[in-house]
Amino acid sequence: MPFTDFGVDELGDYRPESTIPQDFDEFWQRTLTEARTHGGAVKAERVTAQYGLRTVEVDDVRFPGWNGEPVAAWLLRPRGAAGPLPVVVTYIGYSGGRGLPTEHLLWSAAGYAQLVVDSRGQGHDTPDRTAGDGTQWVGGFMTQGIDSPESYYYRRLMTDCVRAVDAVAELPGLDADRIVVAGGSQGGGLALAVAGLTGDRVAAVMPDVPFLCHYREAARISLDGPYQELVNYLRWHSRHRVQPAFATLDYFDGVNFAQRATAPALFSVGLMDPVCPPRTVYAAFNHYAGEDRTMTVWPFADHAGGCGSNPPVQLSWLRERGLAPEL
Amino acid sequence: MPFTDFGVDELGDYRPESTIPQDFDEFWQRTLTEARTHGGAVKAERVTAQYGLRTVEVDDVRFPGWNGEPVAAWLLRPRGAAGPLPVVVTYIGYSGGRGLPTEHLLWSAAGYAQLVVDSRGQGHDTPDRTAGDGTQWVGGFMTQGIDSPESYYYRRLMTDCVRAVDAVAELPGLDADRIVVAGGSQGGGLALAVAGLTGDRVAAVMPDVPFLCHYREAARISLDGPYQELVNYLRWHSRHRVQPAFATLDYFDGVNFAQRATAPALFSVGLMDPVCPPRTVYAAFNHYAGEDRTMTVWPFADHAGGCGSNPPVQLSWLRERGLAPEL
Amino acid sequence: MPFTDFGVDELGDYRPESTIPQDFDEFWQRTLTEARTHGGAVKAERVTAQYGLRTVEVDDVRFPGWNGEPVAAWLLRPRGAAGPLPVVVTYIGYSGGRGLPTEHLLWSAAGYAQLVVDSRGQGHDTPDRTAGDGTQWVGGFMTQGIDSPESYYYRRLMTDCVRAVDAVAELPGLDADRIVVAGGSQGGGLALAVAGLTGDRVAAVMPDVPFLCHYREAARISLDGPYQELVNYLRWHSRHRVQPAFATLDYFDGVNFAQRATAPALFSVGLMDPVCPPRTVYAAFNHYAGEDRTMTVWPFADHAGGCGSNPPVQLSWLRERGLAPEL
Amino acid sequence: MPFTDFGVDELGDYRPESTIPQDFDEFWQRTLTEARTHGGAVKAERVTAQYGLRTVEVDDVRFPGWNGEPVAAWLLRPRGAAGPLPVVVTYIGYSGGRGLPTEHLLWSAAGYAQLVVDSRGQGHDTPDRTAGDGTQWVGGFMTQGIDSPESYYYRRLMTDCVRAVDAVAELPGLDADRIVVAGGSQGGGLALAVAGLTGDRVAAVMPDVPFLCHYREAARISLDGPYQELVNYLRWHSRHRVQPAFATLDYFDGVNFAQRATAPALFSVGLMDPVCPPRTVYAAFNHYAGEDRTMTVWPFADHAGGCGSNPPVQLSWLRERGLAPEL
Amino acid sequence: MPFTDFGVDELGDYRPESTIPQDFDEFWQRTLTEARTHGGAVKAERVTAQYGLRTVEVDDVRFPGWNGEPVAAWLLRPRGAAGPLPVVVTYIGYSGGRGLPTEHLLWSAAGYAQLVVDSRGQGHDTPDRTAGDGTQWVGGFMTQGIDSPESYYYRRLMTDCVRAVDAVAELPGLDADRIVVAGGSQGGGLALAVAGLTGDRVAAVMPDVPFLCHYREAARISLDGPYQELVNYLRWHSRHRVQPAFATLDYFDGVNFAQRATAPALFSVGLMDPVCPPRTVYAAFNHYAGEDRTMTVWPFADHAGGCGSNPPVQLSWLRERGLAPEL
Amino acid sequence: MPFTDFGVDELGDYRPESTIPQDFDEFWQRTLTEARTHGGAVKAERVTAQYGLRTVEVDDVRFPGWNGEPVAAWLLRPRGAAGPLPVVVTYIGYSGGRGLPTEHLLWSAAGYAQLVVDSRGQGHDTPDRTAGDGTQWVGGFMTQGIDSPESYYYRRLMTDCVRAVDAVAELPGLDADRIVVAGGSQGGGLALAVAGLTGDRVAAVMPDVPFLCHYREAARISLDGPYQELVNYLRWHSRHRVQPAFATLDYFDGVNFAQRATAPALFSVGLMDPVCPPRTVYAAFNHYAGEDRTMTVWPFADHAGGCGSNPPVQLSWLRERGLAPEL
Repeated sequence: MPFTDFGVDELGDYRPESTIPQDFDEFWQRTLTEARTHGGAVKAERVTAQYGLRTVEVDDVRFPGWNGEPVAAWLLRPRGAAGPLPVVVTYIGYSGGRGLPTEHLLWSAAGYAQLVVDSRGQGHDTPDRTAGDGTQWVGGFMTQGIDSPESYYYRRLMTDCVRAVDAVAELPGLDADRIVVAGGSQGGGLALAVAGLTGDRVAAVMPDVPFLCHYREAARISLDGPYQELVNYLRWHSRHRVQPAFATLDYFDGVNFAQRATAPALFSVGLMDPVCPPRTVYAAFNHYAGEDRTMTVWPFADHAGGCGSNPPVQLSWLRERGLAPEL
Repeated sequence: MPFTDFGVDELGDYRPESTIPQDFDEFWQRTLTEARTHGGAVKAERVTAQYGLRTVEVDDVRFPGWNGEPVAAWLLRPRGAAGPLPVVVTYIGYSGGRGLPTEHLLWSAAGYAQLVVDSRGQGHDTPDRTAGDGTQWVGGFMTQGIDSPESYYYRRLMTDCVRAVDAVAELPGLDADRIVVAGGSQGGGLALAVAGLTGDRVAAVMPDVPFLCHYREAARISLDGPYQELVNYLRWHSRHRVQPAFATLDYFDGVNFAQRATAPALFSVGLMDPVCPPRTVYAAFNHYAGEDRTMTVWPFADHAGGCGSNPPVQLSWLRERGLAPEL
Repeated sequence: MPFTDFGVDELGDYRPESTIPQDFDEFWQRTLTEARTHGGAVKAERVTAQYGLRTVEVDDVRFPGWNGEPVAAWLLRPRGAAGPLPVVVTYIGYSGGRGLPTEHLLWSAAGYAQLVVDSRGQGHDTPDRTAGDGTQWVGGFMTQGIDSPESYYYRRLMTDCVRAVDAVAELPGLDADRIVVAGGSQGGGLALAVAGLTGDRVAAVMPDVPFLCHYREAARISLDGPYQELVNYLRWHSRHRVQPAFATLDYFDGVNFAQRATAPALFSVGLMDPVCPPRTVYAAFNHYAGEDRTMTVWPFADHAGGCGSNPPVQLSWLRERGLAPEL
Repeated sequence: MPFTDFGVDELGDYRPESTIPQDFDEFWQRTLTEARTHGGAVKAERVTAQYGLRTVEVDDVRFPGWNGEPVAAWLLRPRGAAGPLPVVVTYIGYSGGRGLPTEHLLWSAAGYAQLVVDSRGQGHDTPDRTAGDGTQWVGGFMTQGIDSPESYYYRRLMTDCVRAVDAVAELPGLDADRIVVAGGSQGGGLALAVAGLTGDRVAAVMPDVPFLCHYREAARISLDGPYQELVNYLRWHSRHRVQPAFATLDYFDGVNFAQRATAPALFSVGLMDPVCPPRTVYAAFNHYAGEDRTMTVWPFADHAGGCGSNPPVQLSWLRERGLAPEL
Repeated sequence: MPFTDFGVDELGDYRPESTIPQDFDEFWQRTLTEARTHGGAVKAERVTAQYGLRTVEVDDVRFPGWNGEPVAAWLLRPRGAAGPLPVVVTYIGYSGGRGLPTEHLLWSAAGYAQLVVDSRGQGHDTPDRTAGDGTQWVGGFMTQGIDSPESYYYRRLMTDCVRAVDAVAELPGLDADRIVVAGGSQGGGLALAVAGLTGDRVAAVMPDVPFLCHYREAARISLDGPYQELVNYLRWHSRHRVQPAFATLDYFDGVNFAQRATAPALFSVGLMDPVCPPRTVYAAFNHYAGEDRTMTVWPFADHAGGCGSNPPVQLSWLRERGLAPEL
Repeated sequence: MPFTDFGVDELGDYRPESTIPQDFDEFWQRTLTEARTHGGAVKAERVTAQYGLRTVEVDDVRFPGWNGEPVAAWLLRPRGAAGPLPVVVTYIGYSGGRGLPTEHLLWSAAGYAQLVVDSRGQGHDTPDRTAGDGTQWVGGFMTQGIDSPESYYYRRLMTDCVRAVDAVAELPGLDADRIVVAGGSQGGGLALAVAGLTGDRVAAVMPDVPFLCHYREAARISLDGPYQELVNYLRWHSRHRVQPAFATLDYFDGVNFAQRATAPALFSVGLMDPVCPPRTVYAAFNHYAGEDRTMTVWPFADHAGGCGSNPPVQLSWLRERGLAPEL
């Protein structure tokens, strides 16, 4: 596999014209206000024992998301930790949900709390549009409801993700001044959206090989992965009227959220990523409004990015910014 | 590409054990009754001129489907034809909708009326679950709501398809005694479902390379196409608890509908079809309850089946059964 | 799949240097004169009934082509239409022939006559070089006889295509002042050739995603499809003496025919076309001599171009130019 | 890549029913008689110097083939060899010609004469049907003229190949009692045809991974290579009338030639060959009429067979049969 | 992707003939004795702080392996745990090493100690044959030294893996009566080898989708992954003398180790695994000598097996056998 | 397949910055001196008879290579030739060894002597690091020992290749003033290395589609072949510390050897080569220090380059430089 995009120098200078809709802020303010109006309690049930864990305490959480609907999450923290703990809110990649707590052991091992947020429809425990229990479907989210920003799937999911940050304040033992939002691929795009929509309420954002950025170019150059659902849509359904779809997507573009985000940011990118081509990541990074921003470049990585080498980079970066848990 | 399945001899004998759920008939009776309870009028608007057609009369139809929601369809017929005309109700392949009337010119040229039924969510004009106007999404339908027969996507779509047959009676100039249901791939699976659910109300069924048949084997052996969404679901979401998904699918399996269907049937199959492997088609065909059933075998065809060679076969077969329009 | 070529802006400016051979006009004048010298009658046999069609009248036509050899065609027109009708002469894509009349129902439904021209050797009914009846072969045409313009396969096929226009005058009920030549892929390349070779005898040309254009670049950048036969030839047979092959191809290049063509032209292109890369289409379009030329851009389309969305564009465009049939 | 066919045990027993047409022998007798009627001289020109060779003497040969047309060949022999020498007549793989003498140095180095026969149309120096000089085309031969045994391409090429054996008698210094016919892939199929058509005039035949055998199965199971041209033909052109094509091919099937061949035979096969699947090779081998037959099995080989390991096997095998040149 | 092998029923009965060499036990006894003769101390250095971990204590271990050479390992355990702890000795997949401790957090979180063993040559910290520091190479191990069991790469690596079990006794706080050996893919094959070579010294073995089993079939049917290196070797280097390679491999085959292993065993398999086809896993499982053996079947899984769903299965299975840590 | 790189014009100007390490010359002088210190005799055994050759005399040679270890080679020459003969020293492509003498018949047929040098580890007859007899392994050489120039695999292999030139002087009947070094792919990279390390001791160098050149770009843009082993190493093992690997490779880069080489040079390149992309070949060519350098461009060739058309080009080029054998 060859490099999938420009070289690093060109990427560093890549800053495509902004496409923020005029009513972008209004749209999101309205959307979030509406969601918050529904209120609803955050619930947590201790489930450590059933997963056989000893050093970690696990709660099965439900918090109110879009339309007040209950969104599932795992809360993990070091057993016996005296709070308040810094907390990493983690979002999940495309076509997957929160999975099992045993899949998320890094942050609690490092002394952090972690809230792992389910993705509606994509996971087992959070139906989209009250369609029944359980996992719902594989694929299709990328274009679901794309005719209008009002009905687009990611309006609902991104609202859930912001409400996850709201939920942190309701959970005991967490330090609401040290909320970090993070995730890889779709999770990275969602973290970026949350950073743009919550301003200084999050202390840091760490999007890894983020998806959901710079759709216009992503549709033109991505080689694999869920942007291809968009390409198929434009090929078979929109054909020569492609602007309406992009007009919807402008409300959900990481490049636009980046222009509203101010928290310290640690991005990562793989220069051989066929799914989220480097320029789409750099477009968000180079537009990022916060001054403290860092890009970890994995030069020969595909969409797996830095894999097991990435967590140490993130742990150091958070420590340098005073966000690590006390000893 | 090699043959994707058994040879023709083995296929002719292939008759897997039936997996009809005990409450299969009750489930569908309840579902259809519920849909019909909503009532609602069938509406048709003449749109011939805007498509520049001269020999064909085109109506843009809306009929009440699942939950009474309006389902789009095109009605095409030879201009100036004296009715009542035999009518071919056509269902569409996966991830597409009714498209434009200019894409459906065969049956009216041959003197039939044709009702081309949109697929909710998949096409531009029939939203699923009132999610807004326009086309909705690409992919994902195969597993949407699969946790239960109640919430499964195809419950709604198949109901629409049965209601299309109901709608024929409401449309002037059509002969309700000569309703043929037909389609290729997903359209073939839907036609088979309708044949199984409407009994002798349809005069013939013509499923070409039908999808939505014999899911258990399809998941094991298909090489490409939308059964792969099911495979991905079973791989990533269900893992070693795969029976619940198959239990849902039993309510929507062409092999089961075939056991309830009695109309004369003309199937087709491609022996190199990687999407709908031959045994899945033969499983439905060999279980078909009606005595008058024919299989057109295209020995070296892939999922395109007989392409342009298929219509003459269908035209002859219908004529032999007295279903052709009068001169 | 990513974009396969430049962006639209660069394509609009792409105008490679002309490579018309000095004796290009002389070569074709000589070739066509020779073919016409053979004379021969145009024959038509009414076959509507055997294809079960009601609104369309179909004739099975044989007209004299290269070397006076009989070339098969279908003539379709609205049943009972009072002529003279505008006529769309349609050429066929690579490795296929005229097929069945039921595959060509658009133009007659819209009130036009249509002449569907078989491709010698590629179809069932027109042998190349009197090799016997029936279909002859799959593939290989691209380089057959490439050593010299005299023996190159497309010399014979393009001559047939011009002679199809000649034949229109011999067929009753057609309006020789409203001849439109059209086709997709190879059919588009042939339509362009005919437009260049017949001057103002054709009233319009509509090449969709045309093949047979700008061979030098096509050989360098196409990813799939029959230009690969040329690449294989140059790789295995010509090796470092590639100029002679290109010198032959210059006599058959849509870019060169475009410089001789003056009829109003409606091209189409898919920006993700791996078979006929956009720049090869734009090279012909930007060199097109006629002033009334339009490009329909399907931004995310592959070689399928605009599919079912294209006919309405063509119907409108013809209507605007006064070429539509009278009501 | 996995094994492409049965295991060795099943292959050893694989003996499909014979499909020799009733008039097979009459067809070939007539065809060869007709060709020989044309007569014509064998011409040879010494060209050693221009290829810079020192130990080999090279002649550029033309001998009369089908229809008396001149077929090109290279004759190589050890410089200064006292004849008469045993001679290996070599046929070439699909879509290639005799190439250059420097590509054929094995047999002369081992003391044999070698006659390398060009394939009409496929090579640079032997046009098919007098279509002009030079190489002609890439691909398409597999189905060219397939409508009838009379017009099928391989009728002409196989006649050339038999006439090459006739030509040996006309060339000085060769031992007509020690003619070995050989080749790989298409060359192997041609060698087998010649063995079947010349009886005891050839002293041995060595078909490596032979093509042109057992078309019915080859079309069903081959994964790659020129049998795919046949599959495409059957898919797109013949559709459900596939028997006529197979009826033509029966006249050109290595399985049928094998039943007429008696010379000692050394076959080879690769058990992972995706182009010429093992059972198609074994079908010919197991039907081979001569008693002295050997199969070299290369268990993990693809269509490259034994590559550089094969010549020593052949040299030994010939030596054991007294066919090696004297010291 | 379709099922890559037999159905589950046939797999349950699949028990290929044993190919254990006569001197198998002698070979391994000699090899291990020789390695142990070198002696050497086990060293451990506390490195928890530099990886930023809080709930886990990490030691960087070096223990003496083949030829007494130092082999790297990570030892992880719950911070502050009172020993002695049950310990899971983990081996790594092909072309990777022990990586970072942050990649191995499951077992310590569940209260176990874990020893993660580097693979010589494949990882960063354990050179093979003292070739210098650092990672050494990617690929090639499968056939390195395959000419003889003495020189084969896996002789050295498997010896290291047995010596890792020896090392457990030297490390404080571990319970030598509760040693579990485990791993996925190559790691599973190594765990099986260790189980066969250490008898009742290990309390359980958990091979997931194990590699290094039943080479004769693996070479014939695997579709992807490192068995292809063996296929390439047999294709290009051994050709028709393939038995010597298999004779070497018999000393390193999981099917043979299984016949010597008695510890309770928990295997897993994916029925769509293209890398380690199901029958190769079942061959070892069905030959497994211990009576307490369980197969976890993931019916639609590829080589990723049960992924995140597998650990809970393993945790329960160990708990049921009294191997879980005390609360 | 499209062009894999720049057009010819840009390639002609492509001259990347030099990356020769400061101690490059010292490193190689030390390495070669060390190897020569070991001394050792060149041995040759006559084996002509066992390969059944008549016009060629073959010796099985062992000469001392790196660490004085015996390296296998074939020496072929025209039987009965009066020396001293010009000699072509040939190196072999990746993952293969010297094979059999019957695979190397060109140069002796043209009157030259040829020394075919085995590649340690890659062939059957030259173990790397005294690991036992026979072939050793497939793949992995590209990164073996890459941590340091001292331990890198190619340090040993390139030393063998230089020592092959030393060995020529020890073999009777060869003309040490007419030594040509040559090879394709890896063999071309090795020939270039030897040309750079032996200065005017070689009379000419002929690298065809050379591998082992310009690693930094090769890793970024190659699409297939052994540079992918480097990419995998950088992706999975080095991640964001990729400079150390490139620092090692600088000692083994054809671009750097080219700057030290002065013999007349005949390169070749395929503009569609996915394995050794054109710019990597031109980088060496454009940096080549000798003034007499020629590039044979095969415009549509993949990694097979000019195949059978290349030898005549090389024979002419050598003749023009007075390096051909006397008549």
